[in-house]
Amino acid sequence: IKNENIDMLQFLTLDLLPAKNGEEPTMQFLLEVVDILTNYVRKTFDRSTKVLDFHHPHQLLEGMEGFNLELSDQPESLEQILVDCRDTLKYGVRTGHPRFFNQLSTGLDIIGLAGEWLTSTANTNMFTYEIAPVFVLMEQLTLKKMREIIGWPDGEGDGIFSPGGAISNMYSVMTARYKFFPEVKTKGMTAAPRLVLFTSEHSHYSIKKASAALGFGTENLILLSTDERGRVIPADLEAKVIDAKARGCVPMFVNATAGSTVYGAFDPIHEIADICEKYNMWLHVDGAWGGGLLMSRKHRHKLSGVERANSVTWNPHKMMGVPLQCSAILVRERGVLSGCNSMCAGYLFQPDKQYDVSYDTGDKAIQCGRHVDIFKFWLMWKAKVCAHISPNNCLIFILYLCVFPDREGYQMVFEGEPQHTNVCFWYLPPGIRDMPDGQERRDRLHKVAPKIKALMMESGTTMVGYQPQGDKVNFFRMVISNPAATRSDIDFLTDEIERLGHDL
Amino acid sequence: IKNENIDMLQFLTLDLLPAKNGEEPTMQFLLEVVDILTNYVRKTFDRSTKVLDFHHPHQLLEGMEGFNLELSDQPESLEQILVDCRDTLKYGVRTGHPRFFNQLSTGLDIIGLAGEWLTSTANTNMFTYEIAPVFVLMEQLTLKKMREIIGWPDGEGDGIFSPGGAISNMYSVMTARYKFFPEVKTKGMTAAPRLVLFTSEHSHYSIKKASAALGFGTENLILLSTDERGRVIPADLEAKVIDAKARGCVPMFVNATAGSTVYGAFDPIHEIADICEKYNMWLHVDGAWGGGLLMSRKHRHKLSGVERANSVTWNPHKMMGVPLQCSAILVRERGVLSGCNSMCAGYLFQPDKQYDVSYDTGDKAIQCGRHVDIFKFWLMWKAKVCAHISPNNCLIFILYLCVFPDREGYQMVFEGEPQHTNVCFWYLPPGIRDMPDGQERRDRLHKVAPKIKALMMESGTTMVGYQPQGDKVNFFRMVISNPAATRSDIDFLTDEIERLGHDL
Repeated sequence: IKNENIDMLQFLTLDLLPAKNGEEPTMQFLLEVVDILTNYVRKTFDRSTKVLDFHHPHQLLEGMEGFNLELSDQPESLEQILVDCRDTLKYGVRTGHPRFFNQLSTGLDIIGLAGEWLTSTANTNMFTYEIAPVFVLMEQLTLKKMREIIGWPDGEGDGIFSPGGAISNMYSVMTARYKFFPEVKTKGMTAAPRLVLFTSEHSHYSIKKASAALGFGTENLILLSTDERGRVIPADLEAKVIDAKARGCVPMFVNATAGSTVYGAFDPIHEIADICEKYNMWLHVDGAWGGGLLMSRKHRHKLSGVERANSVTWNPHKMMGVPLQCSAILVRERGVLSGCNSMCAGYLFQPDKQYDVSYDTGDKAIQCGRHVDIFKFWLMWKAKVCAHISPNNCLIFILYLCVFPDREGYQMVFEGEPQHTNVCFWYLPPGIRDMPDGQERRDRLHKVAPKIKALMMESGTTMVGYQPQGDKVNFFRMVISNPAATRSDIDFLTDEIERLGHDL
Repeated sequence: IKNENIDMLQFLTLDLLPAKNGEEPTMQFLLEVVDILTNYVRKTFDRSTKVLDFHHPHQLLEGMEGFNLELSDQPESLEQILVDCRDTLKYGVRTGHPRFFNQLSTGLDIIGLAGEWLTSTANTNMFTYEIAPVFVLMEQLTLKKMREIIGWPDGEGDGIFSPGGAISNMYSVMTARYKFFPEVKTKGMTAAPRLVLFTSEHSHYSIKKASAALGFGTENLILLSTDERGRVIPADLEAKVIDAKARGCVPMFVNATAGSTVYGAFDPIHEIADICEKYNMWLHVDGAWGGGLLMSRKHRHKLSGVERANSVTWNPHKMMGVPLQCSAILVRERGVLSGCNSMCAGYLFQPDKQYDVSYDTGDKAIQCGRHVDIFKFWLMWKAKVCAHISPNNCLIFILYLCVFPDREGYQMVFEGEPQHTNVCFWYLPPGIRDMPDGQERRDRLHKVAPKIKALMMESGTTMVGYQPQGDKVNFFRMVISNPAATRSDIDFLTDEIERLGHDL
């Protein structure tokens, strides 16, 4: 693709389309950009490149050679714009690198990438069929397929793609409220009794964000105790429901997590669903992370009972490797999502259009304009079908990772095989291994993971996350969702941890 | 770029990276995709191509020759994936076409497009500096610049890019509530008195969506009367504030619109700010559409007083031509946005990182993962600077459009020069022109715009929006935000309206 005859120096921004005779400079500029991007893609999969080239904020702010983040008053040349593109990638993090284990969303899927490039080029908006006919239909078909996979009869129900799992979870709480207390839409929360919500102490913090934002208050979100593996204890839910009722509250909503953020735990959905039915509560399953297992014949039993949920969050941008972002909220009962959110804006949702306006799906969103998140996912599905976007490839590593306990210096945070690809462990440098249990050992161990992580980022060779949880001091959470990662990459990570942490 | 030797038929999806020897097929596949995309870009600016090739939902669902939206169980070849890409664009709408006047977001900026391609390739997440160091800093610098332009001293304050203007407006209501009643975050809306919000009857429906979602209730959103140009009448605001107080409510929030969706009206911010100060209410300016005028020396006076706002919504993806989506919520007081939303999730926002964690800005969002919306905007700013992303080029057309009233068969919806590039008018076919005023004429006129629009979409030559407003029957709202549109494109639109509507 590199055309040596191209010399962007001769062109200015104003020479690009829609300028007269702008076609040639435009094509040349875009091909130069693509050259930068394809080189980046190439290197992303090349283990000899680093995952990142770390700099502190003040270093980047002061400016690196030739790369200045400041917005000046002088327009830059196209040549400099290309340099800016190159440098932006250079000082970023290669989230698709086989040794990037830092988040639940990793990898760089080529079909998904192509889909996202096309989406940007189409540059349209999901609110109406009028301006996004193909994408709107793709969304409807894909959501229906997802509902079929969940197990709702004939894939019936409703849903929408939203800007991430936190917003999808927020939709679930809003929709539940509308189902039980539709008058809140017009009269506000004061029209309802004191409502309480339930979620695991291991659940994602977005449920708490939703409680605050939607006017429930975080104190009315009751945290459920979990077993040692991070799964909700159903008896604790029932006890807390009974207690809330005794205090005059109305239990309305339960979130069951399918694949918790840190432990990768799956709450027992059937037992939770029984309690929800008994006490007439909305059951939401947050499968942002674990939803992908529904595509796997071998692993979908972990979400057994999900078909009993009233709503489900499922983020294809996590385990299924779709580029960021791609998150769906799926609702079992038709009509409640649009009932909850529709406002019938006259300038967008004209009832007198020439086509079937039931395809103008934008009014069920809390957004107005909505980014096209469906195409990349649809395209990946077309290209690979369930079998290949299923997480089987990643889950086989778990068996290997479970060898950790036998490796010197590693201690698992909980015993037994993880339920998802999350593997949580402490690395104990030799100086700590023989210390007696106690506060001093805990204090020292708490500092190990942050120190190793800091050194790791500075050397730029790999990345893995850490955090404390409950009464447990900082531990590593390794997570695999990148199909590019192999066993040797995991070996590399553990070798790095030992290299960097041995003398701590 | 077209390499005639490329034959994708020989490759399968599984041959792409991370497959062994996947580099060559990957590069070839991506270049084929780019070939499709650059052709699309070329045609977008070519007036001999149509804006759209309209099909009804059932037609697309039944499948067009070679294009099937259904998700089957058989993986498709890479060749078919390329066909799918081509067809997805073929049956879509060219929102960048110079004759697309349908939405507030139009145009296809080449620098912005390059920025979006890069963003997809980087495929990262805005929540932490750790995995988006460059983008996080770009966001901070750009938001500061925007606050300086608003006129807040030293650009101080806070802000975040959000998934669209509706969410930005929702942030403003949440932030206001937290400022006055921080206990709502923990205790819910029942901890606050009965709160009321105010906004123009011409304002965007997202304020109503926010009232419903956040637990205020749409009945507690009080609509303000406007003058004949769609601008809020300040005396009406004060009267309604006094009335609300008399009813025992607490007036908390006023939204002033800077550039209304249909009329393009600018509410008088100074007079509204005076009332907000007098009654201790939060002033939000919804400049989603009109915010771009702040970049124009000649037009920024229309937002005079914006520096007195407590928060501002400003969508660079509208008048400034940034690809979708790019919307900022800006808050004058530092700390209140993060106070409102932060939940300090331990697995993301570890306090013991090696860098200055004040750069981990994700916790002030209601989202967890957040799409990188900043880079394309930053890059466009770098390339063009204010002068060139200002809307001057578009606004000069207004003068021309004001000629409409003198053209036979056109009637303006309101008199005088529009405040923004929105031009609202009725086209009256000859058969209606001489009818006496009255219900019959109104009924017939109400049907004209939808009919013309339907014919227009079927012929695919141009697109313009229509809607009723208040007691006014359906009228066209023409809007210019596409720098590619010229005077001849406007002539083309009016000719088309006459051609299609003459005999109605």
